[in-house]
Amino acid sequence: MKVWATAACCIILSTLSSGVEAQDLKARTQDAAQWAMPGRDYGLTRFSPLDEIKPDNAAKLQVAWTFSVGVDRGQESAPLVVDDTLIVVSPYPNKVFALDATTGELKWTYVPDTERAAQGVACCDVVSRGPAYDEGKVFVATLDNHVVALDFKTGQEIWSTKVGDINRGETITMAPLAVRGKILVGNSGGEMGVRGKLVALDEGSGKVMWTAYSTGPDKDVLIGPDFKPFYDSLKGTDLGVSTWPPDKWRIGGGTIWGWISYDPELNLIYYGTANPGPWNSNQRQGDNLWTTTIFARDPETGQARWAYQVNPHDLWDHDEINENVLVDLTLDGKLRKVLIHPGRNGFMYVIDRATGEVISADAYDTMNAYLGVDLKTGRPTPNEALHPALGKTIENICPAAPGAKDWQPTAWSPRTNLLYVPHQHLCMNFKTAEVGYIAGTPYVGASVDMFAGPGGYRGEFMAWDPVKRTKVWSIKENMPVWSGTLVTAGDVAFYGTMDRLFKAVDARTGQQLWQFRTASGIIGQPSTYKGSDGRQYVAILSGVGGWPGVVANAEVDARVRNAALGFAGATQDLPTYTQGGSTLFVFALPASANAATQPPAGAAPAQP
Amino acid sequence: MKVWATAACCIILSTLSSGVEAQDLKARTQDAAQWAMPGRDYGLTRFSPLDEIKPDNAAKLQVAWTFSVGVDRGQESAPLVVDDTLIVVSPYPNKVFALDATTGELKWTYVPDTERAAQGVACCDVVSRGPAYDEGKVFVATLDNHVVALDFKTGQEIWSTKVGDINRGETITMAPLAVRGKILVGNSGGEMGVRGKLVALDEGSGKVMWTAYSTGPDKDVLIGPDFKPFYDSLKGTDLGVSTWPPDKWRIGGGTIWGWISYDPELNLIYYGTANPGPWNSNQRQGDNLWTTTIFARDPETGQARWAYQVNPHDLWDHDEINENVLVDLTLDGKLRKVLIHPGRNGFMYVIDRATGEVISADAYDTMNAYLGVDLKTGRPTPNEALHPALGKTIENICPAAPGAKDWQPTAWSPRTNLLYVPHQHLCMNFKTAEVGYIAGTPYVGASVDMFAGPGGYRGEFMAWDPVKRTKVWSIKENMPVWSGTLVTAGDVAFYGTMDRLFKAVDARTGQQLWQFRTASGIIGQPSTYKGSDGRQYVAILSGVGGWPGVVANAEVDARVRNAALGFAGATQDLPTYTQGGSTLFVFALPASANAATQPPAGAAPAQP
Repeated sequence: MKVWATAACCIILSTLSSGVEAQDLKARTQDAAQWAMPGRDYGLTRFSPLDEIKPDNAAKLQVAWTFSVGVDRGQESAPLVVDDTLIVVSPYPNKVFALDATTGELKWTYVPDTERAAQGVACCDVVSRGPAYDEGKVFVATLDNHVVALDFKTGQEIWSTKVGDINRGETITMAPLAVRGKILVGNSGGEMGVRGKLVALDEGSGKVMWTAYSTGPDKDVLIGPDFKPFYDSLKGTDLGVSTWPPDKWRIGGGTIWGWISYDPELNLIYYGTANPGPWNSNQRQGDNLWTTTIFARDPETGQARWAYQVNPHDLWDHDEINENVLVDLTLDGKLRKVLIHPGRNGFMYVIDRATGEVISADAYDTMNAYLGVDLKTGRPTPNEALHPALGKTIENICPAAPGAKDWQPTAWSPRTNLLYVPHQHLCMNFKTAEVGYIAGTPYVGASVDMFAGPGGYRGEFMAWDPVKRTKVWSIKENMPVWSGTLVTAGDVAFYGTMDRLFKAVDARTGQQLWQFRTASGIIGQPSTYKGSDGRQYVAILSGVGGWPGVVANAEVDARVRNAALGFAGATQDLPTYTQGGSTLFVFALPASANAATQPPAGAAPAQP
Repeated sequence: MKVWATAACCIILSTLSSGVEAQDLKARTQDAAQWAMPGRDYGLTRFSPLDEIKPDNAAKLQVAWTFSVGVDRGQESAPLVVDDTLIVVSPYPNKVFALDATTGELKWTYVPDTERAAQGVACCDVVSRGPAYDEGKVFVATLDNHVVALDFKTGQEIWSTKVGDINRGETITMAPLAVRGKILVGNSGGEMGVRGKLVALDEGSGKVMWTAYSTGPDKDVLIGPDFKPFYDSLKGTDLGVSTWPPDKWRIGGGTIWGWISYDPELNLIYYGTANPGPWNSNQRQGDNLWTTTIFARDPETGQARWAYQVNPHDLWDHDEINENVLVDLTLDGKLRKVLIHPGRNGFMYVIDRATGEVISADAYDTMNAYLGVDLKTGRPTPNEALHPALGKTIENICPAAPGAKDWQPTAWSPRTNLLYVPHQHLCMNFKTAEVGYIAGTPYVGASVDMFAGPGGYRGEFMAWDPVKRTKVWSIKENMPVWSGTLVTAGDVAFYGTMDRLFKAVDARTGQQLWQFRTASGIIGQPSTYKGSDGRQYVAILSGVGGWPGVVANAEVDARVRNAALGFAGATQDLPTYTQGGSTLFVFALPASANAATQPPAGAAPAQP
C-alpha cells in the first residue's frame, strides 16, 4: 500500500491508466478547434476540418498577432493549440511558451537549464521541431538530450529525464509523440557517429520504458518473435551486426529525428531511421541495417513488427526519417491500409502498413542517383555510373544529400485525396575521403557541393495523387521549400518560403490565393485552429535557419560552397533575402463588422 | 591640379559643396512621402504632413510587411525612408539594411567588421538609434566607434573613420546627424569614466573636422570669443576644469548619445550632455561643467555660442541628452524662437534658443528630488532632505536615475501645438560608495533599486501644452514607455509599449484608436511615409531591450533588483510579457477595393 502514500504516485498511476486509452489526444483530434500534436493527428495528415478560410476569401487574411521566441535561429517548431492555449518551442536553449491563442498574451515561459556545448555538436542548426501534449502535460525534448514534462496550466516542470550524451555528439531536435501513456523520442547526430535509437518514457514518471536501437544485435533493436518483414533480405538474425564491417554498427548512425505516426487500430507506430555513418560508404561495406529503414513497432513493448530498408548501403546521405502518412486508399478496387512515405531518395512510396510491402514507388523529382525500385525485392537500383569512388568528385547527382524532400512535413486532404509536398530540387557533386572516428566530432568523410536542379529552381510545392501515381499541380520556388504545410476543409493549403513569404494556395488547383512578407525566411510548420472568438487562425514561425539556412543566421561563410555539409553552395544568396528571425505570426480573416475587436481605450483624464 | 586627378576627389568636393547648402535634407523634409532623418526634420518635431490615417479609420490598420534584422537585442533604430527605400540599423553588430519601403523586399545589406569586445563595455544593451542620410549616402555609427558612409544605392562602403576607443569604455549608440556637409556624432560610456565629446566628420571624406569635448579646458570644449551664456555662473575661463576636483574632468562623463537639433536660420546646433561620472557625487565636488548641459554651437566650427547646465553637480544620474525640440511659440504676446527640452530631471524646459535663457521649467511627473528651478540663476533647487550620503541608502527619490524621461523622443504637432511625451514614472532608493577608476570598466559608485512611482504605474504617454505649461491628456502604462513617438497631420500619434503593443491615439484627445500585439516589446522610434503605391505606411521596430529591457533579452538575472544599474528592480516582470525580438513592422490601411494588391499567382502547370 506504500505506493499510494504520496499524491505524486497517484497522479502517475492515473495518467498511465488514461494514457493507455489515448482518449485525450483522440478527442482533441476530433475537435476542429485544436491542433494538439505537430501532425495534428496520429496519421500525420496535417488536415484541419476548419473551413472558414476558403479560396474566395483567403486574399483577405491579415496578421492577428505576433510573438518573438527571442532566439534568432532556425524556427522549425510546430505551434500546438490545446484549449485556447498556443504552445511553441524556441531553438536552443529550447524555451517553451504558452500564449493565449486568440490574443497572443503570454501565459507562461519555461526556460530549461541546458548544456551550452550541445550547440557545438548539432550538425545543422539548433532547431526544435516542437512540443507534444497529452493529459494536462506538455512534453519537450531539449537539444542537450533531456525530455521534460511540464504542467500545461503553469509551465512548472514535473519531471526531466536525460536520454543521451552530448559528449558522444548526441542531440535531440525532433518533436516527441505521446502514445498510450508513453512519450516517444529519438536522437540526432548521424554526422557524429551517433548510434540511433528510439526511447519510450512513461508519461507520468519520465522513466525509460524501452529503447530500440537502429543498429546492433536483435535484442538491442527489439527484434523478436513478432518480427515479420515482407522482404527476404530483411529476414535473419542480428542483421544489424552482420551487415556492417566489424563493430562499425556501434558508430553507424541510423538516428531518429523525424516523425512518428501511429495506427491505433493496428496498434503500431511507424518511423524512419537516418543515414548510416560515415557518409563515405567505402568505410561501411554491407547493407548497414537498420539505417534508412521504416520500422513498424508495438508502442507498448517497442518490439518490431516489420521493417523495410529504403536505401540499403546508402551512398548519398539519403536519410529516411521523413514522415509516414497513414491513409486508406482504394488500389486496384481494394481498400488498403497504407502509409505514404515521400522518400528522401526521391521516390514516393506507398506501402502496406500492416505488412511492409511496397505497393508503388515513383520518382517525384529529378533523379539519376537511382534507376527505379524493384518491387520484388523492395530495393532501389543504384545508378552504377555514379557510384562514389574514394577521392574522386562524382558530378551532378540528383537528388542531392538532403534528398528530394527532407524533414519538412507533407499534408494529406481526405477531400482531394492529394498529398501536398513541400520539397527541394537540388543536385550535387560528391567527393568521398577516409575519415577517422573521434567521439563527439564530425564523422562524415565527404565533401559536397549542392546546386539547383534542372530548370534552375531550387524548390517546389506540389500536389501528388498516390493512386494515379502522378503530380497534379506544381509551384516552382526559387529557394528550397523547407517549411511544412497543412491543408484544410476549406481546400486551402499553406506553406512558407525561405525568401520570406507565407502563402495560401487553392488545394485543388495550386492557384496562389494570398501571400504575406514575413520577418524572416520560413522553415517552420503551420498549424490552424479556432480561437475563443470563433475565428479560424493560422500560425507559423518565421526564422530562417536549419540545414539550408545557417548561412543566413549563423557564422557560416556562404562563400565556402561546401560549408554546412554542402548546403552553403545551394543557398549562397540567402542573405540577400533574409536574416535569421524569431517571430511567430498568427493570421486570420478580418473580424466581422459587428465584432468587438477594439480593446478598451487606454486614455485616462489628465492628472492635475 | 593634382587633387583633381581622381574621380574620388571630385565626388568629395561636390558633396562638400552641396552639403553646405543642406538642400538635400531640406527638400526631403518638405516631401511628405519621406522620413529622411530620425527626427524627420532638423527641429526634431517628428511631425509628418501625411493625413491618410485619421482617427476615424486608424482602427483598420493592418500589418503590410515585416522584416527581421536578425539580432534579438534592444531595437531603438529609427527606420528612415528616402526615395521609396527604407533604411534601418540592427543592434550590435550594427548591420544596415535597405528595403523597398512599399513591398519590404531587401535591396542590400551592409555588415560592418566590428570588434566584439564593444559589447562588453556598453552599459545598457548594444543598441543603435539609427542611421543618417544625406546626398546619396547613408551614415551609420557602430558600437565600436566607427562612423561609416555607404552608397545609398548599393550599400558599398565609401569611408570608415574610427572616432573612439573601446578599451577606454567608449562606444557609440546615437544616430548621427548630417548638417551642412558634416556628420555629427557623439560618444557613449558615461558609466565607464569616458570623457564626452561631439565629433564632426566631413561627409565626403570622413575626415574629422572638429571635436568638442564636454569637460576640460575651453580650447577642448571649443569655448571661445563667440561664447555668450545667459547665466553668470556659466561665465569664466576653463570652467570645465575648475568645477572639478583636480584632473577628475578627464574621466568625468558628459557623453553625448542622444539627439542633435539644428536651426538653419540661426545656424546653430543644439544637444545635451550626459551625467558626470561617477554617479557617486561625493567623488566630484563642484558643478562638474559641462556635464548635463545643453550646448548651442556653430556647426561649421563647433564653437559654442551658449550653454545651459541643467543639473549642476548632478546627484542622480540625470543625464540631459534628451532632445531639444525647436518650435516658435507665442509667449506673453511675443513670438519667440524656443527649444523645448523635456528634462530627464523631470522639468519641462522652454528655453530661448538664441540666448539660452530658461523661460519656464515645470515638473511633468512626480518629483521630490528637486524643489523647483530658480529662473534667475537657471539652477534647480535640490531637495537637501534627500542628499546622498556615502554608504547610506536614500529612499524613495523621484524621478529615478533614468529620469522622468530618457532618450525616447517626443513629437510636436504644429496643428495641436502640443508635445507628445512618452516617459517613465519611477522612483528609486540610491546608495553611494567610493569607486576607483580602471580604464574600460564600470565607474559608477552607486547601487540603485528602482520601482513604480505613486499610483503603481511605471509609464505614461501624455500631451503637454508648453504655453499653458500643463498636461492636456495622459495615458497611464504598466511599463515604462521607452519607445519614441510621432504625430501626423491626420492628428494621430503612435507609440509602443514594452509589453508588446503598438498603439495609435487621437492626438487631440488621447483616445486610443487601435493597438496591435507585436512580436516583442517596443522601445523603437516610429516613422511614417508614403509608399510608391501612394498609401501611408507606419514603421516601428519591435524588440525589447535597452536599459529597462536587458532583463528580457540578455543574461541579466531579473531577480537581482540592482542589476542593470538598478533597472532590473523596476522591470522584473518583463519576461512574463516578452522576449527580445528583431522585427520591423510596417502598417497601413487596407488597400482600396480596386487596388491590385495580389501578386501574380505562382502556380504553374504540373510538370510531366
